[in-house]
Amino acid sequence: MVAAVDIRPATPNDIPLILQFIKDLALYEKAPEAVVATEELLRKNLFGERPYAEVILAYVEDKAAGFALFFHNFSTWTGRPGLYLEDLFVRPEFRGLGIGKKLLIQLAHIAKERECGRYEWVVLDWNEPSRKFYEAMGAKPQKEWIIYRAEGKSLDDLASM
Amino acid sequence: MVAAVDIRPATPNDIPLILQFIKDLALYEKAPEAVVATEELLRKNLFGERPYAEVILAYVEDKAAGFALFFHNFSTWTGRPGLYLEDLFVRPEFRGLGIGKKLLIQLAHIAKERECGRYEWVVLDWNEPSRKFYEAMGAKPQKEWIIYRAEGKSLDDLASM
Repeated sequence: MVAAVDIRPATPNDIPLILQFIKDLALYEKAPEAVVATEELLRKNLFGERPYAEVILAYVEDKAAGFALFFHNFSTWTGRPGLYLEDLFVRPEFRGLGIGKKLLIQLAHIAKERECGRYEWVVLDWNEPSRKFYEAMGAKPQKEWIIYRAEGKSLDDLASM
Repeated sequence: MVAAVDIRPATPNDIPLILQFIKDLALYEKAPEAVVATEELLRKNLFGERPYAEVILAYVEDKAAGFALFFHNFSTWTGRPGLYLEDLFVRPEFRGLGIGKKLLIQLAHIAKERECGRYEWVVLDWNEPSRKFYEAMGAKPQKEWIIYRAEGKSLDDLASM
């Protein structure tokens, strides 16, 4: 069954809701302590002078059911921006209604509209349900690429070389 | 030995050079046919109304030796932008002079300056020399994350669902 879902872009009024969704998702990803984001940081970096990402919200009968946060990356091979889905989350009580799929498809529309060459996201390797869902939607795992990251002390060290 | 390397931001005049670097890197990555970028696309998407990425160039005695292309991603966990290195390339005849390292470090400086929470990039799993180099620089492989991608027909299909 597909619920009557309303999807709309987030506004600064939605910041507390977005932060709650971020925390709920981190809990699901088994890393609740990893969230150091604050309302202040989200206000500055999502709705400030230079917005680094965009958020869409899914509502079911005026209840906030889920969200997707995305930004544009860039591929030198295509010469075009891509759309990168950073977070997708649907509250447990709203699962099974096709809301995650609607959010995913909405972003595919935006990607086409903005002439993006690719639409990408990452998934934890143990998250079989999500991986199966994404593969059923036609996305392909890029297993030959490994993400490298410097953060905290390793970023400080690199910057001071 | 570390050469006298001059690093500067690219301008629209550097577009043909950037495209050549992109093609040279794709050849090294064993995917020369993957580059569909054109000078026109780079002009629009790097130097147009909405620049999606930035480029820095490394010069050795006025000879273009290498480049790095980067953009800002966003992490919901940190609530901050990150710096994402999309491409790093040094021409074969300029390797061994510490130029790749200089480009990598320059971006770490920019990441700190712009208050980024993370500095990230991806590496092909068979590229042992690069992986060793990055690990020696303090970056950590994020092996539990798998990239998923929709592009071409799979993106069209997703958008038309």
